[in-house]
Amino acid sequence: MLRQELQQIIDQKTKPLGALGQLEAIALQVGLVQNTSKPTISKPHIVVFAADHGIATTGLVNPYPQAVTAQMVLNFLGGGAAINVFCRQHHIGLSIVDAGVACQWEEPLLQDTRLLQHKIAAGTANYLEGPAMTAEQCATALHKGREVVQQLSAAGCNTIGFGEMGIGNTSSAALIMSSLLQLPVSECVGRGTGADDAQLRTKISTLETVSRLHQIEALHQKPLELLQVIGGFEIAMMTGAYLEACAQGLVMVVDGFITTAALLLARAIVPAVVNNCIFAHCSGEQGHQKMLEALGAKPLLHLDMRLGEGTGAALAIPLVQSAVLFVHEMASFASAGVSEKQ
Amino acid sequence: MLRQELQQIIDQKTKPLGALGQLEAIALQVGLVQNTSKPTISKPHIVVFAADHGIATTGLVNPYPQAVTAQMVLNFLGGGAAINVFCRQHHIGLSIVDAGVACQWEEPLLQDTRLLQHKIAAGTANYLEGPAMTAEQCATALHKGREVVQQLSAAGCNTIGFGEMGIGNTSSAALIMSSLLQLPVSECVGRGTGADDAQLRTKISTLETVSRLHQIEALHQKPLELLQVIGGFEIAMMTGAYLEACAQGLVMVVDGFITTAALLLARAIVPAVVNNCIFAHCSGEQGHQKMLEALGAKPLLHLDMRLGEGTGAALAIPLVQSAVLFVHEMASFASAGVSEKQ
Repeated sequence: MLRQELQQIIDQKTKPLGALGQLEAIALQVGLVQNTSKPTISKPHIVVFAADHGIATTGLVNPYPQAVTAQMVLNFLGGGAAINVFCRQHHIGLSIVDAGVACQWEEPLLQDTRLLQHKIAAGTANYLEGPAMTAEQCATALHKGREVVQQLSAAGCNTIGFGEMGIGNTSSAALIMSSLLQLPVSECVGRGTGADDAQLRTKISTLETVSRLHQIEALHQKPLELLQVIGGFEIAMMTGAYLEACAQGLVMVVDGFITTAALLLARAIVPAVVNNCIFAHCSGEQGHQKMLEALGAKPLLHLDMRLGEGTGAALAIPLVQSAVLFVHEMASFASAGVSEKQ
Repeated sequence: MLRQELQQIIDQKTKPLGALGQLEAIALQVGLVQNTSKPTISKPHIVVFAADHGIATTGLVNPYPQAVTAQMVLNFLGGGAAINVFCRQHHIGLSIVDAGVACQWEEPLLQDTRLLQHKIAAGTANYLEGPAMTAEQCATALHKGREVVQQLSAAGCNTIGFGEMGIGNTSSAALIMSSLLQLPVSECVGRGTGADDAQLRTKISTLETVSRLHQIEALHQKPLELLQVIGGFEIAMMTGAYLEACAQGLVMVVDGFITTAALLLARAIVPAVVNNCIFAHCSGEQGHQKMLEALGAKPLLHLDMRLGEGTGAALAIPLVQSAVLFVHEMASFASAGVSEKQ
């Protein structure tokens, strides 16, 4: 009923039928998610979850040193990262969450309310040696992710995107993908921040070892266990955040490889979560395209970006706003006195 | 020299090398077009050229009646068309030009300065019966297009996109494409505003007749003659506008099928015009993708839009702005104290 009503509103706008392409599909989707024929985008917000990964201390999977995670958190707070630029440009709110950065912040940063302090631990354990986190840590991280979304939703945000920062986290994402989509590790691993050929071979063989060690292939119906053994704190919080955003009826704009891996986990827990998702872009990280295909997603942007931080989501939010705006602001054939098709 | 300087600035930003994908290529391009290491987007503007086509009076190529061109001009002036919505959203200036609409405007519209009155004639002649326009009309239209751009450039605009409205103008665009890219008419003709299968067959056979009548295949090195025999006044003005924008050193954001056909004409006159062009999107109109391939273009958006009016350009301009903003606003590894790749 609502679907037909929305479709009719869209079809009566002064344009050939279907001529706004994917924007029309998004307008329809947002209306259905919000259960209204007058969809709106209110206080769009990006949350960047940052955390470190034990595996990164080995240097086997990451060209950049682990210290970059904390350095980039400071860069976010200083306003100098790409996600800051794009959020400022489009008046998108931005929150930074310390989900488990391997550092001890000093004053006055500890009192800085712009950095949400939800550190589970100073990085996960190295999953070459054991599970990345305890079951309790995993549960706490999921819960903290939910809390962050609850607060934003209570403050009037109805559209949210997640971003991440964590040296080594493309490795967790690749392992999650391998297990949940039942694909060989080698098909899921990419260059991340820029591994060269030799680094890529080492990354693949390391993660194949991890895959065998934790028998992740058998965990494809046990997403929480999978998350616990090879996940990251930022990925766990994003998983909780997706689930809460779905429960709150928010529109979610999905970013790149790592955030989509978290979505795969959330979907394995609550399949309906994808109904609220708009896919921002197809990342340049190999593997992301296959994830999107598995989700039946048609991403809005194909810019070969592979930066993370939620940058793809920030660039796509204006397109979602365009989709909602045309529904509100365009004239209909009748109101504008334009002749219809003969 | 400037190229290396720009590339170094881009590479020193706090992100993995190349991680902003196409945005990095655009930042470089805009810097080179503007001959500066500090590119800017100033007063971005869309000009919509509207005109009618004699062929449309036959009903052989167009599902919508010719009257829609004038009705849509009124819709643009009333603010109710898609291009109005997107330009308002992104603070993009918008001008509407009557290049040759088949109607007589009444007062007070004749005094309305928002409608630039450059009507060459009340629509082109039907090219099934003779040339669409005289050589003089063609020259005047090219000149008027140049004038419009000169005025915007003088007012401080450095980034421009063109849009069009003209029932029947996908037919002119297909014929231009067929001649300049030396492709069979049937590969260039698409459904336009929504021809069904039978209408598409009629459209193709009609345009094949036109192609033979004017021997357009032989005109591929005579762009002005081609424009005169099967073009439209809005296409002619856009061609002049592209040439002038190139001469003025403006960045051009290229929209869809018809505007790209005008660019093919401009390129046949001054090949360097494409150096200033950023390609906004790949339209849903069949044929546009082949045009883009012929131009070696990598369009920013793939949203299956096929509305014209410059709507694709309006949605892509924020991405161009993002590209310029990251160059200005992102911290460098050095300034943010972030470690580089090991």
